[in-house]
Amino acid sequence: MKNSKLIVFILLLLGGFAKAQRPPVIVSPQVHADKSVTFKYFSKTAKEVKLSGEFLKDPVSLSKDTSGVWSITVPSISPDIYPYNFVVDGTGVADPNNTRIFANERFKRSIVDIPGDKPLIHSLQNVPHGKITYQLYNSKSLNTTRQLLVYTPPNFDASGKTKYPVLYLIHGGSDTEETWTKVGNANFIADNLIAQGKAKPMIIVMPYGNVRPAPMPDFTKDVVNDVIPFIEANYPVKAGSENRAVAGFSVGGGQTLNIGFTNTDKFGYICSYAPFTATEEFKKNFDNWTPNADVINKQVKLFTISVGTDDFLYESVKKNIAMFEEKKIKIKPLIVSGGHTWMNCKLFLATSLQEIFK
Amino acid sequence: MKNSKLIVFILLLLGGFAKAQRPPVIVSPQVHADKSVTFKYFSKTAKEVKLSGEFLKDPVSLSKDTSGVWSITVPSISPDIYPYNFVVDGTGVADPNNTRIFANERFKRSIVDIPGDKPLIHSLQNVPHGKITYQLYNSKSLNTTRQLLVYTPPNFDASGKTKYPVLYLIHGGSDTEETWTKVGNANFIADNLIAQGKAKPMIIVMPYGNVRPAPMPDFTKDVVNDVIPFIEANYPVKAGSENRAVAGFSVGGGQTLNIGFTNTDKFGYICSYAPFTATEEFKKNFDNWTPNADVINKQVKLFTISVGTDDFLYESVKKNIAMFEEKKIKIKPLIVSGGHTWMNCKLFLATSLQEIFK
Repeated sequence: MKNSKLIVFILLLLGGFAKAQRPPVIVSPQVHADKSVTFKYFSKTAKEVKLSGEFLKDPVSLSKDTSGVWSITVPSISPDIYPYNFVVDGTGVADPNNTRIFANERFKRSIVDIPGDKPLIHSLQNVPHGKITYQLYNSKSLNTTRQLLVYTPPNFDASGKTKYPVLYLIHGGSDTEETWTKVGNANFIADNLIAQGKAKPMIIVMPYGNVRPAPMPDFTKDVVNDVIPFIEANYPVKAGSENRAVAGFSVGGGQTLNIGFTNTDKFGYICSYAPFTATEEFKKNFDNWTPNADVINKQVKLFTISVGTDDFLYESVKKNIAMFEEKKIKIKPLIVSGGHTWMNCKLFLATSLQEIFK
Repeated sequence: MKNSKLIVFILLLLGGFAKAQRPPVIVSPQVHADKSVTFKYFSKTAKEVKLSGEFLKDPVSLSKDTSGVWSITVPSISPDIYPYNFVVDGTGVADPNNTRIFANERFKRSIVDIPGDKPLIHSLQNVPHGKITYQLYNSKSLNTTRQLLVYTPPNFDASGKTKYPVLYLIHGGSDTEETWTKVGNANFIADNLIAQGKAKPMIIVMPYGNVRPAPMPDFTKDVVNDVIPFIEANYPVKAGSENRAVAGFSVGGGQTLNIGFTNTDKFGYICSYAPFTATEEFKKNFDNWTPNADVINKQVKLFTISVGTDDFLYESVKKNIAMFEEKKIKIKPLIVSGGHTWMNCKLFLATSLQEIFK
């Protein structure tokens, strides 16, 4: 245990109550006033340390000082929240000095938040805040206990007197039920838009979208047969499809289309962000689809598909949009710049929150 | 963006909807029926991959197969939840295929949960579950907005008719407000003990204990002047010190002693786990302390200090215990085996929950 004791002791020293003569704590990332950012990594043994981040075109190399601290300052970065990681002698690692980490089932990157000169829509602002509740529900469809997150708006009335519309918001493949809040700041986006009167006070439910092992259609069953009844039994929810929306990103964007269009009686708003649709479920639902467009266009008050022109799914998403238009389904596409990123996810969500439940 | 697109695409492939011909998803860790565990890491370029974990005396080497998958199977591990990480050519990394990660401000390890033959007190069991609420409060003491976590027990009555006692539970230095739930399973421990009738239904508040920059005494102010008033304004809380407890681990164990004994009128239960007390605040509070033991022993219904005999703070904690005994403060020490670990934290909490509010 000697090593692990030593490690614990070092962690304690780093823990912020270090005396003057002890080694300095590394602060990384350090966002400067001009939006340039200094990233640091400590290693006396590494031969090469690179920085990879979604604010960079290509990885850049850090330089090492005599004390073993590697660092680089990246010039002014456009205000947003970006994932990044170090690559130490070829091995990807999260920033050990950054608490904020990308909630994911695979390699977990770190996150850096570049503030705007004026607070951004996803920034923590001095407005009333909602709460995020982590809770467990029993999924009969998947025969397991699952966790979901529930955002309740500022000044939420738990008494049941006030009823709220509900957005079901799905993460991307390999993300988790925490990614929309921990990476997407969905709660701050909602807080700010509600404070500005641009979004209706609403409940946002963030389920866990991945089914291990697949088939993914089981998630559609989970949402419709387990998640929705659980929420409606435990929260003061407005009845009717005009008070129910579904949205999701990437794999979750594909799930949004599958869940939404096989249940147009249940969802008045369907918002799909950069959908991944190369799935058996999508093929089954839409390849030989002969929808009654008139009925669906009455039921669905808003159907949007959003994507960035640099998204590696852009061509595929354009085909999706064309397919729905060809079937005479009323659709409001949102085409922006940028790639298959959580930077765009925040923009897509902020747009949808101002359009649903109106 | 080509690289990051490729990375996203690979993540999507790994995301669980991969077609047969695509590379297999690595499952790590894999806990087998005999409690042996297989750990895997993929790298075609690494020269050496080691596994470090709190279930191991020393790191062990993984071996690589022709496809670049490194693996090792560790023989039967005693049921518990353990932190671990890989060391790839000398660089510590979390397990990229494990969603569960150690909530911390420094290097974030992965977590493996070895189930018992009978469910352990910290395991998810088929009992009614409480909820964990993430919420923001304004700390006037620290002049900032901070997050805290609030556990509410199963069938929590939000109407205000039922009132609950409150435990204020503090993490260790460099941990975060999430560590007690994400590493310590505090919510499952409470769910299970409440279901067994061994613990009273209670609210557990998990604040963020680190003050950056120090001084740490400011956290005592934050708890007493900001956190407690915020909780008592927003939750149905039983009045009186006999319905208020404070507990914490390591740095949080030291904070528990500082907070508790400078406010014995407010806390009827003080539970300190492996306290780190080499701080200015502790020195100031206890070096020339002349307590009125009779008064304090009436006010404080339970004062416990818990520690493991392998804890690197064991000798220091024994001195703490002796100091309180010498001052005639009634104390109930709990000395167990094991080190300065979250395995012991769970045991300490499970013990305290059965002793407080009785």
